[in-house]
Amino acid sequence: MTSVEPTFAMIKAMDHGDALASLRDEFLLPEHTIYLNGNSLGALTKKSRERVSDVVDQQWGNKLVSSWNTHHWIDLPITTGEKIAPLLGAAPGQVICCDSVSVNLFKVLTACLALMPERHILLTETGNFPTDLYVAGGLQDLVTTERCKVEAVSSATLLSALKKEVAVLLLTQVNFRSGAKHDIQALTEAAHSHGILVVWDVSHSVGVMPLELDAWGVDFAIGCGYKYLNGGPGAPAFIYANKRHLNKLQQSLQGWMGHRAPFDFSADYHPADGVTRFLTGTPAILSLASLDAAMDVFAETEVAQIHQKSIALSSLFLNLVASTPCLKDFSLESPEQASARGSQLAYSHPQAYAICRALHGRGVIADFRSPDVIRFGFSPMLLRFEDIWNSVVALSEVMEKGLFEEPELHKKLKVT
Amino acid sequence: MTSVEPTFAMIKAMDHGDALASLRDEFLLPEHTIYLNGNSLGALTKKSRERVSDVVDQQWGNKLVSSWNTHHWIDLPITTGEKIAPLLGAAPGQVICCDSVSVNLFKVLTACLALMPERHILLTETGNFPTDLYVAGGLQDLVTTERCKVEAVSSATLLSALKKEVAVLLLTQVNFRSGAKHDIQALTEAAHSHGILVVWDVSHSVGVMPLELDAWGVDFAIGCGYKYLNGGPGAPAFIYANKRHLNKLQQSLQGWMGHRAPFDFSADYHPADGVTRFLTGTPAILSLASLDAAMDVFAETEVAQIHQKSIALSSLFLNLVASTPCLKDFSLESPEQASARGSQLAYSHPQAYAICRALHGRGVIADFRSPDVIRFGFSPMLLRFEDIWNSVVALSEVMEKGLFEEPELHKKLKVT
Repeated sequence: MTSVEPTFAMIKAMDHGDALASLRDEFLLPEHTIYLNGNSLGALTKKSRERVSDVVDQQWGNKLVSSWNTHHWIDLPITTGEKIAPLLGAAPGQVICCDSVSVNLFKVLTACLALMPERHILLTETGNFPTDLYVAGGLQDLVTTERCKVEAVSSATLLSALKKEVAVLLLTQVNFRSGAKHDIQALTEAAHSHGILVVWDVSHSVGVMPLELDAWGVDFAIGCGYKYLNGGPGAPAFIYANKRHLNKLQQSLQGWMGHRAPFDFSADYHPADGVTRFLTGTPAILSLASLDAAMDVFAETEVAQIHQKSIALSSLFLNLVASTPCLKDFSLESPEQASARGSQLAYSHPQAYAICRALHGRGVIADFRSPDVIRFGFSPMLLRFEDIWNSVVALSEVMEKGLFEEPELHKKLKVT
Repeated sequence: MTSVEPTFAMIKAMDHGDALASLRDEFLLPEHTIYLNGNSLGALTKKSRERVSDVVDQQWGNKLVSSWNTHHWIDLPITTGEKIAPLLGAAPGQVICCDSVSVNLFKVLTACLALMPERHILLTETGNFPTDLYVAGGLQDLVTTERCKVEAVSSATLLSALKKEVAVLLLTQVNFRSGAKHDIQALTEAAHSHGILVVWDVSHSVGVMPLELDAWGVDFAIGCGYKYLNGGPGAPAFIYANKRHLNKLQQSLQGWMGHRAPFDFSADYHPADGVTRFLTGTPAILSLASLDAAMDVFAETEVAQIHQKSIALSSLFLNLVASTPCLKDFSLESPEQASARGSQLAYSHPQAYAICRALHGRGVIADFRSPDVIRFGFSPMLLRFEDIWNSVVALSEVMEKGLFEEPELHKKLKVT
């Protein structure tokens, strides 16, 4: 808690002084809505809307198949990847955009196995994002535990689980539920000291905090295009592969788009140079173009500034909740220290589900996570400080008036 | 050759009598263009245009994350799959739409290996679509040849290569280059008589000829959403899994969307019932919605009628070429008999590349395939018989006037 409680006038002053305030104009947001769920699905940008319309009407509709060349669809996985690269601290030539996080993780893990023929353990943590665990398990079952044995340990015991049998350490930087953040640099160094490759899932951090994958020596990373990158529902994901591994690596989802010369239609697979060999099938152009356009919003600012505002927004929310007596039953599930968390706050409350629905009815979109958690995500490019204030006011009203306990009222509010 | 050479008046009469003629109005086609490349990228439908616009503006832009439920994004892989099912001759519950053909093939092949623990050969043909061969090779290298050894034989020797060590036969129904068509039913029966599973790639046939996968007893099929289905560039692909295999099968690209309860975020993977377990990551909604809308055009007709018109169009093209003296150097690379081919014709010519560009300059969009083949694809829902006539007229002019030999002229025509 701050010693001086903020007033709405102070909040408005924060918005006035916000160097990123104008970025909100890049978004098409519904009226009377405070969107605290950009960590689940990023909002629509004007650039994406315009681009998708152009891709549909002009590129596909008018120019048809020739757009693969004339509108550079064929290069889009690389060009979009290069737009993501600065957010990762990645020099050119190491990022490609395609498929889903899950599919990309499978590719990356097979590449790791190929690089580490003498080791067989895939180490991860029990609280990792579930789909990462599922993908690892699927690979294990396919190649047998002799070749790939998944070991999932608690976050607290990760360091002691690093040993010479471990081929690859797979972790997510920011926990999807609590927002707790791993120290990529320290864990990467620790893993490397045992000769272990590291794969970082940065789905819940890319676009909202600076990453330095090159400087940190990370081997591989994967991440999501539809959260803080605002690519749209199910936008393609991305792969980062450190250049020291490129050209010698082999990934197992070999498809024609990763071929050196796809339009030669040769029967033999010869992987493309560089990160392009991580491509498999034909990219989903509408979804990819939407992400590509959304990335241009990031070109207008610096991710360090975004991060600074993310901390300011989440800290304000945290302080307002802590200083509001009727919210005392909300138990913070996220690290209190801003440097230890991502751009989200999770609170547990026995009535979390009903409260989340009641908030929705008042135009505050947060995210329920079973069994009793509400996640509030902070997208610094579109949120104002007054949105934070108003969302805590809404939460207070819901709690003070017990709105979440009255099912009839929910119906009136057309809660979805 | 027909004994009576057609005249333009006869052609116009064919268009007048065409029961499918009105379907052309479903498409947004550029002016002065005859599109003979719908087998590579299907054209834009009004329904797709409208739907994508709605998904972007209203569903994503306005309703944000809640559209996963309220606009049924979460169900779209299944609902789109069920729209494709009638084209496959598949009863409900066996088709799902997601990812690319290549990624889906990998999933299906791992499911086959899991069903056939005692066998290790993956039989295919050397002329199969290259990405299918690449995917098979990638799987082989990952699991070792002891578990999966790819044997690619010529089409002519397929039957004699069926033996008890073969786990799975992987073939494409219609050859991407020549259009030559396999007899799915006969080859499936032959494979089954050796206890072999069959996987059919129907990318170049779905939507343009009736398929009867259930009746033919096919085990698995995969196919493309952006060719004759008109889903848009890189539209998601689909998987057909015969119901006799569902619920006991395991595929290796396990992701959260294939989980029984994805939003429980449990650490353990429990596959969903039925064909849903073939899902992996989050579906690319913009691309998937476009395909979903395009499928509604098929609801207005019968695929048998589409096939009938396909034969009529391609036969007319073939006859016109054969009866035009200046086209005598075009060598037909496709089966002459309509029942033996898909909805395309391939001709080889030493100047194929230059001719294809010259045709493009005259608004006739065909497809060059290295080293010397021009493919003409026939999309019955949007092509008129007069388009066929006019495309052969254009081809004749190009050849008679030698337009393809004059690079300067190409520039003037803004050939792309």
